[in-house]
Amino acid sequence: MPEMNIMNNLKETVIVQVRFSEVDALRMVWHGNYLRYLEDAREAFGRKYGLDYRMIFDNGYITPVVDMHLEYKQPATMDDILDVEICYRAAKGGKIIFDYTIYKQKDKSLVLTAGTIQLFMTVEGVFEPSCPNFYAEWKRKWHQL
Amino acid sequence: MPEMNIMNNLKETVIVQVRFSEVDALRMVWHGNYLRYLEDAREAFGRKYGLDYRMIFDNGYITPVVDMHLEYKQPATMDDILDVEICYRAAKGGKIIFDYTIYKQKDKSLVLTAGTIQLFMTVEGVFEPSCPNFYAEWKRKWHQL
Amino acid sequence: MPEMNIMNNLKETVIVQVRFSEVDALRMVWHGNYLRYLEDAREAFGRKYGLDYRMIFDNGYITPVVDMHLEYKQPATMDDILDVEICYRAAKGGKIIFDYTIYKQKDKSLVLTAGTIQLFMTVEGVFEPSCPNFYAEWKRKWHQL
Amino acid sequence: MPEMNIMNNLKETVIVQVRFSEVDALRMVWHGNYLRYLEDAREAFGRKYGLDYRMIFDNGYITPVVDMHLEYKQPATMDDILDVEICYRAAKGGKIIFDYTIYKQKDKSLVLTAGTIQLFMTVEGVFEPSCPNFYAEWKRKWHQL
Repeated sequence: MPEMNIMNNLKETVIVQVRFSEVDALRMVWHGNYLRYLEDAREAFGRKYGLDYRMIFDNGYITPVVDMHLEYKQPATMDDILDVEICYRAAKGGKIIFDYTIYKQKDKSLVLTAGTIQLFMTVEGVFEPSCPNFYAEWKRKWHQL
Repeated sequence: MPEMNIMNNLKETVIVQVRFSEVDALRMVWHGNYLRYLEDAREAFGRKYGLDYRMIFDNGYITPVVDMHLEYKQPATMDDILDVEICYRAAKGGKIIFDYTIYKQKDKSLVLTAGTIQLFMTVEGVFEPSCPNFYAEWKRKWHQL
Repeated sequence: MPEMNIMNNLKETVIVQVRFSEVDALRMVWHGNYLRYLEDAREAFGRKYGLDYRMIFDNGYITPVVDMHLEYKQPATMDDILDVEICYRAAKGGKIIFDYTIYKQKDKSLVLTAGTIQLFMTVEGVFEPSCPNFYAEWKRKWHQL
Repeated sequence: MPEMNIMNNLKETVIVQVRFSEVDALRMVWHGNYLRYLEDAREAFGRKYGLDYRMIFDNGYITPVVDMHLEYKQPATMDDILDVEICYRAAKGGKIIFDYTIYKQKDKSLVLTAGTIQLFMTVEGVFEPSCPNFYAEWKRKWHQL
């Protein structure tokens, strides 16, 4: 059922204009600043699919990043406009897993690939071992189970 | 009474090693990053004289910066170690005013002078028009009235 | 000559979505992060009026900020979208002076006013005492003399 | 030869005081700011063992991070002082590989583990496929071959 497959594929893209203050002494984007762009993408994803920090917080949770992997393919620089793509990866239980790719807009050349894993933590600071109900419902709604 | 004058002069100095990530494409400290160094100095001052954010918060307040003035005299760069001096300036009412000077440690040449004004705001987000009692007491203790 | 006055009034506005990573422990934009927004505005101004860092650099100069004054009127927070307005202020000689105002887009309430002064520095790091020719020409072109 | 093993084990530790501006709206260190601490550790390592950016640059190279993996074990917060340990991992060819662990100083509880891979790039921006001579010599000197 290809329609289903498309349905399952939750994606978003944000456009980032590199800031002067994000470039380092080598005139490349400082490698730590890409984490801001990934977070921009996560927030845009959350707004698009109803999984934003506020909705999560209202359910009593925060979702810290517990694992992150980045592969830097090519440096971006001051005049670059970047496409930051985020894709939700279905997984069992209470994990939120995203894959990311960043391209230069002008030539679609690859800048970075990355992955993050987030877990649910109560606002009191305790990791949630099971999958919160509201997140199980969210996954059902978007056919991610 | 000179002893008094010395007493009145509340000062602290912090040493900052410039980070690679704080330097911009021109290999100078990005002008916005000096605000981190000034904040380092404010926090060290607070720890030294018992006017730290936690003590203030426990009294029901936060103290946002409402006014800031910076004069950049000379760029600092990657190999520089900086002395950041902070000096409390006595003022009437519920204001916290600091003056700052930043020097290169190696030759004591001037990098920046700055001033900040902070006001008291309740944790509910309302500016406090009068001087909180605990701050009036703090000023008395340190002969700043 | 009102047409002239309008002509003289060089302005630009950029829209900034506050990032999660720009908000501090008090859930307000950390006061140092506004300097990024002001720089966004300066860069947009430069692109609009042909006074960008690259054109300046190709003429042998950089233009460090040497003086900055900020007045914080109201904290911005995570869900805010901000209008950052920049206005060029005509001045004699080799100074670039900008005034800024930042508003919350939703209610046009004032968040910050600021001013910056930039000077010309050769790429070798020496401040230029006189007004570079290309900048004098730029001012003439835009009726800023 | 245990002496050799100890010799081979190149390590450094830096102490980081968490800054107010590095903490996010949840009063935890924003996950991207740990990359600053890792870079602090890399720079301290470089100074200790003579593999700093300046020596590398004088040899015609820069060493961008091309791969980074982070596991966040526990959030650090505003009052924390952190020990950031960096350990060089011997590898064939022109790779610089480091492992990191970050602890809270007060109770030695684990905050983060991480690994980075850096490659040599010429200052013209081309990745170096082979191992530069000066790096091969550095490895020999420190018994890392």
